[in-house]
Amino acid sequence: MDKNSFSGKEVLITGGLGFIGSNLAIRLVELGAECQVVDSLHPEHGGNWFNIEPVRDRVKVVIRDVRDEELISNLVRGKDFIFNLAGQVSHISSMDNPCQDLESNCLSHLSLLEACKKYNRGVKVLYAGTRGQYGKIKTRPVTEEHALEPVDVNGVNKLAGEMYHMVYHQVYGIPTCSLRLTNTYGPRHQMKNSRQGIVNWFIRLALEDKELLCFGEGSQLRDCNYVDDVVEAFLLAALSERSTGKIYNLGSGVAVSVREIIEKVVALVGSGKMVKASFPEELSRIEIGDYQAEFSLIQKELGWRPSVDIEQGLAHTIDYYRNNQEHYF
Amino acid sequence: MDKNSFSGKEVLITGGLGFIGSNLAIRLVELGAECQVVDSLHPEHGGNWFNIEPVRDRVKVVIRDVRDEELISNLVRGKDFIFNLAGQVSHISSMDNPCQDLESNCLSHLSLLEACKKYNRGVKVLYAGTRGQYGKIKTRPVTEEHALEPVDVNGVNKLAGEMYHMVYHQVYGIPTCSLRLTNTYGPRHQMKNSRQGIVNWFIRLALEDKELLCFGEGSQLRDCNYVDDVVEAFLLAALSERSTGKIYNLGSGVAVSVREIIEKVVALVGSGKMVKASFPEELSRIEIGDYQAEFSLIQKELGWRPSVDIEQGLAHTIDYYRNNQEHYF
Repeated sequence: MDKNSFSGKEVLITGGLGFIGSNLAIRLVELGAECQVVDSLHPEHGGNWFNIEPVRDRVKVVIRDVRDEELISNLVRGKDFIFNLAGQVSHISSMDNPCQDLESNCLSHLSLLEACKKYNRGVKVLYAGTRGQYGKIKTRPVTEEHALEPVDVNGVNKLAGEMYHMVYHQVYGIPTCSLRLTNTYGPRHQMKNSRQGIVNWFIRLALEDKELLCFGEGSQLRDCNYVDDVVEAFLLAALSERSTGKIYNLGSGVAVSVREIIEKVVALVGSGKMVKASFPEELSRIEIGDYQAEFSLIQKELGWRPSVDIEQGLAHTIDYYRNNQEHYF
Repeated sequence: MDKNSFSGKEVLITGGLGFIGSNLAIRLVELGAECQVVDSLHPEHGGNWFNIEPVRDRVKVVIRDVRDEELISNLVRGKDFIFNLAGQVSHISSMDNPCQDLESNCLSHLSLLEACKKYNRGVKVLYAGTRGQYGKIKTRPVTEEHALEPVDVNGVNKLAGEMYHMVYHQVYGIPTCSLRLTNTYGPRHQMKNSRQGIVNWFIRLALEDKELLCFGEGSQLRDCNYVDDVVEAFLLAALSERSTGKIYNLGSGVAVSVREIIEKVVALVGSGKMVKASFPEELSRIEIGDYQAEFSLIQKELGWRPSVDIEQGLAHTIDYYRNNQEHYF
């Protein structure tokens, strides 16, 4: 990507102190963007001030909930791009507290889109969808046409959030686009619990020389993207006119089993050990089966392809947390 | 249906003073049910005390919002069936006030389902879905497998509401079922404005000898069900074990154009006249195209089929409003 791609562009990142949001902010600053970040720092979400340390003095940060109507109205004005990454991403948490998930993943997006409708219909809005929108997998690799039958409240609400973005494009002409992410891992992911992604959680356990629980045979397949590849996809989607009103899967091209992920993490870290355990009921009921994405649509239309394989990605991630452990756990 | 089918059964109807809810309540009382109704009497929804006049002394009525957690917890206990019909049904209103639509069509269902999860996992819950969940129609007749791409906020939220019911079945074993309704018309529909269904609105205009606006050529096809047929479908779905966890389309088997509906109404009422007009932009943007449902699944599995054709249905409806006009407009 040309180093001036976002030169002078006004950008808003919701959830910008979180995992993907902060990695995006750092990259956007490098590419010349004027970057504003809004984050609620909700204690159960992934926001962390340290995440934007490298660009701390070049990013404007607002700590508040995007559901604040006056605030969000001011934030969307004059922006060229909004990366709309705020939200609650844990499947288990969505079942424990479905109404809170609804507020984070539906009400906040409606508030943002209403503000765009009123004050800035020309802003390009990028939404972070999820493979959870598909529910139990019927055919692999999973294309964007796969049935949408979420198995948990988070999947339902994330899908509704994506659909609002499509409706606001069709009805009001706001140029929106959704990327459906799969297991994203890498630096700046929260490490407090396992609820927002197993790959990073396994890394913490290995670094602490603990047991990495492998449920059942650990044979279920996952499709993992390193965060830099996901950031690149968001940037390409933002800059392309072709992406407007579109939905794209991301993926890695390689499915790995949960057991393989554990084995790789233990080998790369050099500590921790895999322990087999039976599947907890709360997880087995919302388990989606093997997942592998078909991402040829974004490859064809936007020229995106993942460039970091899982060994490299895990190694970078492990390095990051070794060097910055005190800020995460 | 056997006249003792619901004898001694405890039934809750949310939105029970509304159009379909009140027709259901009347029928359920005839069939021996102990019927409790909860309705918020939200001024923009369809609730009306007169709707349950025929069974007023045989139905328990609670006027309150189902989002009241303590209330709903008490209401779901001990029930055998819940007909979950509360909600906001106007497409246009959902675009004018999307956050209110979200509260009515998502938050209230999560509240109800959470209460069932905590206090009554055995209760059969019937949900009223809508053809609006499909969005723009790609292939006709529309089966339950048709793509789900709602074109307005109401369609998104109704779909999320249905998906919650399916998730609570899969995860907690609550026996839920959704019927996807098409244009339902008949006695007890609100007649204050056109936002909740064109067929009834045309009847009011004709009874008042006004102009019935036909947008464009009026050639878009609609699939209309008389309310008694829809009530029958809910009752069959409630009594069947086979319906658990299922989603069924309703339909009439006959698609009629909006122009034909207007012509039939004007002819049957004997007053009013059709006037052509151009499509208002707010409507054309969320127009779904021609709709006709494929309802062979419910026919095969539950033995349901519509029994009232549109001429009969319109005639019954016109009679009802001629006799009870003062309670509706």
